Amino acid sequence: MSGGGGEDKEHKDGEENMAAWLVGIKTLKIEPYHLPPLGPHDVKVQVKALGICGSDVHHFKNMRCANFIVKKPMVIGHECAGIIEEVGSQVKNLAVGDRVALEPGISCRQCNLCKDGRYNLCPEMKFFGSPPTNGSLANKVVHPAYLCFKLPDNVSLEEGAMCEPLSVGVHACRRASISPETNVLILGAGPIGLVVLLAARAFGAPRIVIVDVDDCRLSIAKNLGADETIQVSTNIQDVGEEVVKIQSAMGSGIDVSFDCVGFDKTMSTALNATRPGGKVCLIGLARSETTVPLTPAAVREVDVIGIFRYRNTWPLCIEFLKTGKIDVKPLITHRFGFSQQEVEDAFETSARGGSALKVMFNL
Amino acid sequence: MSGGGGEDKEHKDGEENMAAWLVGIKTLKIEPYHLPPLGPHDVKVQVKALGICGSDVHHFKNMRCANFIVKKPMVIGHECAGIIEEVGSQVKNLAVGDRVALEPGISCRQCNLCKDGRYNLCPEMKFFGSPPTNGSLANKVVHPAYLCFKLPDNVSLEEGAMCEPLSVGVHACRRASISPETNVLILGAGPIGLVVLLAARAFGAPRIVIVDVDDCRLSIAKNLGADETIQVSTNIQDVGEEVVKIQSAMGSGIDVSFDCVGFDKTMSTALNATRPGGKVCLIGLARSETTVPLTPAAVREVDVIGIFRYRNTWPLCIEFLKTGKIDVKPLITHRFGFSQQEVEDAFETSARGGSALKVMFNL
Amino acid sequence: MSGGGGEDKEHKDGEENMAAWLVGIKTLKIEPYHLPPLGPHDVKVQVKALGICGSDVHHFKNMRCANFIVKKPMVIGHECAGIIEEVGSQVKNLAVGDRVALEPGISCRQCNLCKDGRYNLCPEMKFFGSPPTNGSLANKVVHPAYLCFKLPDNVSLEEGAMCEPLSVGVHACRRASISPETNVLILGAGPIGLVVLLAARAFGAPRIVIVDVDDCRLSIAKNLGADETIQVSTNIQDVGEEVVKIQSAMGSGIDVSFDCVGFDKTMSTALNATRPGGKVCLIGLARSETTVPLTPAAVREVDVIGIFRYRNTWPLCIEFLKTGKIDVKPLITHRFGFSQQEVEDAFETSARGGSALKVMFNL
Amino acid sequence: MSGGGGEDKEHKDGEENMAAWLVGIKTLKIEPYHLPPLGPHDVKVQVKALGICGSDVHHFKNMRCANFIVKKPMVIGHECAGIIEEVGSQVKNLAVGDRVALEPGISCRQCNLCKDGRYNLCPEMKFFGSPPTNGSLANKVVHPAYLCFKLPDNVSLEEGAMCEPLSVGVHACRRASISPETNVLILGAGPIGLVVLLAARAFGAPRIVIVDVDDCRLSIAKNLGADETIQVSTNIQDVGEEVVKIQSAMGSGIDVSFDCVGFDKTMSTALNATRPGGKVCLIGLARSETTVPLTPAAVREVDVIGIFRYRNTWPLCIEFLKTGKIDVKPLITHRFGFSQQEVEDAFETSARGGSALKVMFNL
Repeated sequence: MSGGGGEDKEHKDGEENMAAWLVGIKTLKIEPYHLPPLGPHDVKVQVKALGICGSDVHHFKNMRCANFIVKKPMVIGHECAGIIEEVGSQVKNLAVGDRVALEPGISCRQCNLCKDGRYNLCPEMKFFGSPPTNGSLANKVVHPAYLCFKLPDNVSLEEGAMCEPLSVGVHACRRASISPETNVLILGAGPIGLVVLLAARAFGAPRIVIVDVDDCRLSIAKNLGADETIQVSTNIQDVGEEVVKIQSAMGSGIDVSFDCVGFDKTMSTALNATRPGGKVCLIGLARSETTVPLTPAAVREVDVIGIFRYRNTWPLCIEFLKTGKIDVKPLITHRFGFSQQEVEDAFETSARGGSALKVMFNL
Repeated sequence: MSGGGGEDKEHKDGEENMAAWLVGIKTLKIEPYHLPPLGPHDVKVQVKALGICGSDVHHFKNMRCANFIVKKPMVIGHECAGIIEEVGSQVKNLAVGDRVALEPGISCRQCNLCKDGRYNLCPEMKFFGSPPTNGSLANKVVHPAYLCFKLPDNVSLEEGAMCEPLSVGVHACRRASISPETNVLILGAGPIGLVVLLAARAFGAPRIVIVDVDDCRLSIAKNLGADETIQVSTNIQDVGEEVVKIQSAMGSGIDVSFDCVGFDKTMSTALNATRPGGKVCLIGLARSETTVPLTPAAVREVDVIGIFRYRNTWPLCIEFLKTGKIDVKPLITHRFGFSQQEVEDAFETSARGGSALKVMFNL
Repeated sequence: MSGGGGEDKEHKDGEENMAAWLVGIKTLKIEPYHLPPLGPHDVKVQVKALGICGSDVHHFKNMRCANFIVKKPMVIGHECAGIIEEVGSQVKNLAVGDRVALEPGISCRQCNLCKDGRYNLCPEMKFFGSPPTNGSLANKVVHPAYLCFKLPDNVSLEEGAMCEPLSVGVHACRRASISPETNVLILGAGPIGLVVLLAARAFGAPRIVIVDVDDCRLSIAKNLGADETIQVSTNIQDVGEEVVKIQSAMGSGIDVSFDCVGFDKTMSTALNATRPGGKVCLIGLARSETTVPLTPAAVREVDVIGIFRYRNTWPLCIEFLKTGKIDVKPLITHRFGFSQQEVEDAFETSARGGSALKVMFNL
Repeated sequence: MSGGGGEDKEHKDGEENMAAWLVGIKTLKIEPYHLPPLGPHDVKVQVKALGICGSDVHHFKNMRCANFIVKKPMVIGHECAGIIEEVGSQVKNLAVGDRVALEPGISCRQCNLCKDGRYNLCPEMKFFGSPPTNGSLANKVVHPAYLCFKLPDNVSLEEGAMCEPLSVGVHACRRASISPETNVLILGAGPIGLVVLLAARAFGAPRIVIVDVDDCRLSIAKNLGADETIQVSTNIQDVGEEVVKIQSAMGSGIDVSFDCVGFDKTMSTALNATRPGGKVCLIGLARSETTVPLTPAAVREVDVIGIFRYRNTWPLCIEFLKTGKIDVKPLITHRFGFSQQEVEDAFETSARGGSALKVMFNL
């Protein structure tokens, strides 16, 4: 299987195609991007909608995100959906003209983690827009058919692109076993906190409390269905007092806390607020080293669950969108076209944060 | 059910009985201890063997251990075995003369955690020698029959008392799902690290690497069956280098790491050394706040599992001892009788640590 | 703890009280029933609502149900709710006047199954109206406080009594891990099939198909939220054809099938219809020996999960009723008072089946 | 990936090679078998050891096994090991001359079951010697490299071939969660029963009772480490009495029963003998329809677990063989060369059963 979003800028014999290349700090250029040849199990997709993720913004601002470093020009972007233009000779379940959402990561499917169904942890993963693999902010991409999921008529291409961030919420809820028996606390009402909120509701969480420093984001969370919202400070001294307030707002034991931020304070709040035998899910990645009350949580057997991307979530996300159990449209706050100027503006908008939740390209 | 090891010094009508009372920092007094009345489901046990635990030493030295504070004189001790002297009217499965090991904690059996089988987390737990509940370093105690487990002929009373620390290892191995597919790293070769080693071996762990700062403890670990031992420093700067050495000694992925210490350095080593999708088990409680690389572990979906005591472990521990799958005798390094002088000496010995692993009383 | 619903007709010193005694086949007599003394952890409850269960009808008609045989007169009934009249000296969380739903089984809380949280399997279980333990179709009963659950203001006593049958559905959905990812097939639209339907919906099942021989019951199922209903025959030759029809109605793989009947035909349908790697849950108990295609299911790793009553389900049932996620009121089709004549009529009505789903007493 | 053990007899341009073709009932012919081209991720293996499986014998005798029907000549065999003769251009972890054991099934790696790690249930599976896919009783086969596992120096090629049947035992023990806490009953002491015995011991089962009708097989089981062996009848009337005898031989609750036969009688024995909350694992496939006491087991929440082949078991099997935790050599009772006469004799020997456990070819 070739795929991989086009590993190579130099496929001179491939069809010409324009893409947004990250060539330096805060520098994106729309330039030609030669697609790799279409393998027998691949499809060629016209990208129609693509959302900007926090990790894209990290790459844009710093040429790196966590341990992933951009060492040479790379096409950016990975949350996308589009229309199939061509299918490989062995592709059976998709046809030209199908509207599809793309799962961006290609795992090796040979290692123990892949065999055991934990392919998101595959060490050989090739992931759109995660260096050195090119991304998908391009007119067209080539991708394995089995990672392209057909959208029902009542799900738009923008919603299809939103399957990617929503997948993070779905994977987190699966790993934390969210059910009608799980009271949920969410730390952070940014894009990740909000998709966790939507997913937790869809998994049946009876009561969800969400906290943030930003009152405006909290009111969005309230509109999206949070039962209680609490504005918190950035001062770590307030943890004790805020935990009391949070627990009182919940009204019964907090079974699972999702830290969608990753600061000392959010982790400490999550660890201290969760009931004995509960779980803390870490999704936010703000700090690589944190000072936290891990031992007091351990003696209450509060387990800490790490979350990395997702695995096999697209069908469920699409089901949620199709049935209306989840509505992701309110998360899309800004839209841009695919011109040099708009690409620059879109990334600047996303980087500023604030009222911008999901910034979407329509190509 | 009355039980509770005799809550009250003032049962004047109860049978007289001597016990080791902790009356102040490093001050133990053997004084009378009136037993509570024998309830219909209780047994009266002549305590014959009792080991000193690290938490007993904390109480002895500081009048506290974690959040448990000794506010009034309290009988100390909880790792014990003995001979049944009397049985309550409703007791069916035990008889006078039976040799039994005692599980020290009485849970409420009514709360959700008890109903769900996680009774070790019961907020109403009454636990021998955990303030304000009296312990069992006494000639006799009264205890619920269902928490007394008959010893086979080939298991001594001292080994019976060792079921308590061994239970911590067994509970940790259960929670971490140790099996013939789990390569294990143990941080710390003290009494807890060693019972984890014994239990992990019994659960089939194919390869166990153990590290400590103390070469002497490592050679004990080696004799108890560790595949590799590695001496490490106390310098946190060495984590990176030591992780390389540890991973190389393991030779393949580390599936589960047990931190039996609880320092920044041991937790950091555990978090960094464990393979993607693996687990870190926290048993050591040295620090209440730790500075650790939790986020890099989370993005590898290394989960952190807290361990608090144990639940329903005695039958399995006794099975391990009876069949010889586990031999705890090498852990018993010192023995004392039950006199004022010997009690003081025993606690001083245990508090000094060093070559003292398990200090045992024979009453 | 005394409790046990009053084991003994001969508590002559207990308060007088009337109860419905099963004294022979199809013979119920309202006669005095002396309550046992109130233990310190017990409450005395005025029974106000009680539903008739299929097992009560078995006892009524045959003096037995499965292996439980009625050998001497026994108070019948176990699905009940009422008002607290008196509380034992140690009872903290309940007060006189509280409206409560009663969990009918008292387990030993000492055996391995109890300790592991599977107390519904306790071999020492004493269960209302399951011989030789007296039931609760009485003006008053004595019961352990920890098995009495306070009802919110917006949940009626009748709904409280319905927590018992609903618990069967909840326990089945828990054991089968029903979630928004589980397509569900239900065999049988009687009272059990319908509570499974309600519970599966509440656990998020995206698509539920239910089958029965009775068109009338199917229309009730449709009204209660089934996505598709299919009328089937009683002829085992039709299994193959009906499986095709059922799978087509589902439109995608059947993840979990609940057999709420227990005939050769329903089990065979469940086993054949379920997707590879799915589960079949057995709740119906019509036959003790069945001829079924177990091997073809085994080679598709379709696991068969047995369901016996429930464990720790009342809080969740009450939450479902309080929030309106589940509405059990449509299941209550008939109501009777507590007179000799009405008790007889009520049991006859329930025994006839047909349009009678849940027959309820108001005492 | 081409692989698939050579789908096509007609690869005229492929290298010539001899194989044992099943051409009719009890009719095997050694004839040329043209290998498919070597794909970039494939290896070419000289087959050196191959064992005959019960399913091969079914094909040999009936041209079918369960729903798999042999419609055209097919190379037989699938339990094999060999030496690598050539590696594809992209193969990194294997080299010419490596001794390898072959996992025989190639799954699609695209469907939900594959993605979730349950690839043994993949509906697109191509499996050596399972029609219409050719098997591996041939001088050479082409196979995907990721399904070839390097053998350590102290593991012979014959032992390598035994990884396949052993994998069935390992997969069954994993699915049944066998551990030092699981008392095991095995029904049937044929090749499958014996590999389950070996695997259960390696997973730590403290006590294993095995039953069979054949005293000779029971003495082999005894030699392989069974704690107790019990000779049973073929008369279904004896189930009740034999269950009593089996439970008494176990001496405590039977946690997991493995039915390695699949008759009404063995399933009934397993279902009735297993403790409440235990599991029955079905591996034997003698009958497609069985008359069994499923309901009485269901009300004791005895779950029935189906077993189909295995998934990702080779590394663990090789580890067991390398460390000596499992010795499969006593199972190899007969050896044959790869000539027309010997192939016929070998299959006749295996088909006769009796003292023949594993019949092995040395090529």
